[in-house]
Amino acid sequence: MALQHATSGEVVEVRPRGSRIGDAPSTAIVLDGNIEVMRLMLPTGKSVSEHAVAGPMTLHCLEGAVDVRAYGSSRPMRAGDLMYLAGGVPHALYAIEDAFVLATVVRLPPA
Amino acid sequence: MALQHATSGEVVEVRPRGSRIGDAPSTAIVLDGNIEVMRLMLPTGKSVSEHAVAGPMTLHCLEGAVDVRAYGSSRPMRAGDLMYLAGGVPHALYAIEDAFVLATVVRLPPA
Repeated sequence: MALQHATSGEVVEVRPRGSRIGDAPSTAIVLDGNIEVMRLMLPTGKSVSEHAVAGPMTLHCLEGAVDVRAYGSSRPMRAGDLMYLAGGVPHALYAIEDAFVLATVVRLPPA
Repeated sequence: MALQHATSGEVVEVRPRGSRIGDAPSTAIVLDGNIEVMRLMLPTGKSVSEHAVAGPMTLHCLEGAVDVRAYGSSRPMRAGDLMYLAGGVPHALYAIEDAFVLATVVRLPPA
């Protein structure tokens, strides 16, 4: 089952999984009115189709390696790399290796 | 000198520093209208006084260990631990060991 969302002040662990990476599903670990943190577990070859979100976001590769396609080019990210994407920028992911990526998305209030 | 802020789509590395942790200053690595990402480099014994920010945030310990004080108690966080804090929650940090903490703060537009 999915984890419960973290409550404010709770410590959740997002350590690399090593050979157990396949055991943990992608799940939302924080879901607040204005911030959402998801852990994406992507086995080698798995992709996340191009999409965009309204608010700005960061992608933080915690384990393995992914290609992130945005602005018409593909950038490799490996463990320890972080990318900021402005709101509305279409992007896609492709796992070069089994990868664990933390996505932090700002959910803007309606204008 | 401080790093330049990352531009959208740029890959920045936030790997542990090991013995070189003292060489890197705390700095803002992303500064957008609605999201701010700071890397905090805290040598053992260093503290960040209690403060609060308007928007929700996460603290992600990437290296070493810190105590985070919030809601009247202190919670240890070591490398791989993440904490979500709702907007406006007073919190303080204390480095138990040389620590590298990524702070991601949502900057809400004026109501």
